Parts: sequence; C-alpha cells; structure tokens
Amino acid sequence: MTKGLFITLEGPEGAGKTTIIDMLLTYYQEQEKQIIKTREPGGIPISEKIRSIILDPKHTEMDARTEALLYAAARRQHLVEKVIPALNNGSIILCDRFIDSSLAYQGYARGIDMDEIWEINQFAIGNVMPELTIYFDLDPRVGLARINNTTDREINRLDLEKIEFHELVQEGYYKVIEKFPDRIRKVDASKPLEQVFQDTIAIIDHYLK
Amino acid sequence: MTKGLFITLEGPEGAGKTTIIDMLLTYYQEQEKQIIKTREPGGIPISEKIRSIILDPKHTEMDARTEALLYAAARRQHLVEKVIPALNNGSIILCDRFIDSSLAYQGYARGIDMDEIWEINQFAIGNVMPELTIYFDLDPRVGLARINNTTDREINRLDLEKIEFHELVQEGYYKVIEKFPDRIRKVDASKPLEQVFQDTIAIIDHYLK
Repeated sequence: MTKGLFITLEGPEGAGKTTIIDMLLTYYQEQEKQIIKTREPGGIPISEKIRSIILDPKHTEMDARTEALLYAAARRQHLVEKVIPALNNGSIILCDRFIDSSLAYQGYARGIDMDEIWEINQFAIGNVMPELTIYFDLDPRVGLARINNTTDREINRLDLEKIEFHELVQEGYYKVIEKFPDRIRKVDASKPLEQVFQDTIAIIDHYLK
Repeated sequence: MTKGLFITLEGPEGAGKTTIIDMLLTYYQEQEKQIIKTREPGGIPISEKIRSIILDPKHTEMDARTEALLYAAARRQHLVEKVIPALNNGSIILCDRFIDSSLAYQGYARGIDMDEIWEINQFAIGNVMPELTIYFDLDPRVGLARINNTTDREINRLDLEKIEFHELVQEGYYKVIEKFPDRIRKVDASKPLEQVFQDTIAIIDHYLK
C-alpha cells in the first residue's frame, strides 16, 4: 500500500504544465506539504540518458515502436527509482507526463494501436497508476504559438512535427479521457495563468482532503 | 515476402559466437554469397546508443524491466533499419543475438515471466522471426573462463554477474529451445573451434540448398 499521492499532469506542448508545476510546488511547500516534482522522460540519470536518445533532433530515422519502447523503459526506471520510493515516503508527486502521453503521442498520433501501447506500459508500470491526472486542455495551435514566442526553450524532435501531428495528439488525449473519466480531470488552459493555477489547486485540494 | 535468410546466433558469453560469425562471413563471401553480419544490441547508431546505456557497468541501479524494454527498443530499430532492408535485398543475415537472448537473460535469468518478455518483443518485431537459430551450447563456467583469459575484451555490466546468473541463462536457453525445436539447432561449442565452425556450416548449408 502506498501512502502518498501520485498526480500526473498531461497536455499538449505549450499548455503551461511546467510553469504550473513550479507554482504548485511552491504553494504546497508553503503549506508544509511533503511534495516533489519530476518529469518524463527523465527525472533520474538512466532515464535522462534515454530521454536524450528519444528527443535528439538528429534521430529522424527513429521508428515509432522504438520510440514507444524507449518511453516505456524510461518510465519504468523513473517509477522504480523515484516515484515508488516517494509514494512509500508519503509524498505528493507532481509528474510532468506519464502513461497518457504514450497513449496519445506514441499510440494515437503515431498510428500504433492504443491497446498495444497500453500493454507494453503495463509491463513497465505494473499496477502503479496515478490516482489523479490533470489534463491541460488547449488548442494545439495556441500551444505551439506560445512555444514559438519563447526564446529560452530547447527545441526537441517532437517540436519539429507538423501541426497535423499535434492535432492527432489532442484527439488521442480525448480518447484517453473517455477511457478514464474518473482519474482524468480537465482544466481549461486557454485561461489566464493565475486562473489555470487556481482551477488546478481546487482539483488537487479535493484529493488532499 | 522476404527473399533473404535471417539467421541468429545465440549462446552464453565466451561460446565463440563472434569468432565463428567472422569465419562464416569470410567463408560465404568466398562462395560469392550476399551476406552481412550484425549484432544486438547495436548494429546501427540509435541502437548502439541504447547499447551503451544497457551495458554501462556504472548502471548498477538498472531495473530488470527497464533493461528488457531497452533491448526490445534496440531490437526494433535494428530490425527496421538493417535486418528488413537486407532481407528484402536477398541477403543472408548473421545476427549475433536476437529475441532468444531476451527470453533467456531478461526473462528466465532475471525472473520475469518469459511470456511477458515474448509480448514486448512481439510489439518490437511483429512477425519478423529468424528462419534459423544456432545455439552454441557450452557450460557457462567454461565460457567465462575463456573470457577471463582474453585481455582485449571490453568488460560490460553482464560480465559482472555471478556464475549463478549465467547458469540460469543456460537453463533459460534450454526452455527456449524446447519451445522452438524446429527453428533452433544446437552446436556443441566445447569442441575445437574448427570443428564448431564445420558443424555450423553443415547446418547453414542445409538451409541454403
């Protein structure tokens, strides 16, 4: 039995996940909650090395199934080394992307059956699913426009995809939300940042009570 | 439909696979056969990068399921970029290790259900299985003694495993051979090198006729 609370944050590029996670971390630390933030793919040395293979813009020959397996590998190691110990320690974990990203990006958008993606991820995570997932809902065109206006963001292989790919990702996420209506809560990420933050806190606070 | 012949070579560390593959390559090239050699994990740039993560002796924290997923990822990319094009080109492919290594090492020896290992590898390879697999049968203690007497061999993470691990690998291979008696042919690798080479040629020639 885990004692902590495993929360994942999902959504398209430019939805503001990274900024909101930092704001959530500060907010709950000020309330003296035991909380950590982490991200996928990455978060620990082996998974960061896998991340660098996945996201290298030079790897244009990367096959979609290779990519899906690499994400699952990075997910497994990150889960074992970081998420499970933190859960056992009673922490709240804010994880930037998890299995739903694989279902939407590697599955639906890349054209691999989502059930197949689910199976290799079951191999990776066993029964450790997040209790709560917040989906930052945003038109992918708006998200990409935000990214393009940011100068300090590293460009990765996924950023090179055309808008059609990101629209498929959004459709994929909507399919995932249909499958897991109890776990996944939607937040309107087109609103001003402070409002998105408040909406997110309202959802999380409900789980902390 | 593939036109070439996909041959994989399996066995414990120190069984002489690498040496035999080089001898086979020369032998069949002299007969003007179209033949290539390759190896797993590796063989192409992305898979070599995955290989370096898998085999890094510093990665003692590597989880068994992470390892299995990384092997499957490297396998997929190698298959798509190298094996399938060579098969379509009518070549004989000599591949040092393939799915049976994952079943024996990551499955049986690491204690993960072999059916689970089979499933993530099905995701990786689809229906592209070798037509012929040669298993170099050797007591793992003999194999390890051979390696320890070789000075120019790079030590990797698997070499650091205890003898008990390599004995489990052998048991695992025997289970795999029971499952695929038609595909896998055993060669006694304790014999002198020239004899092992001749025994191997006899098997392959049968498939080339």
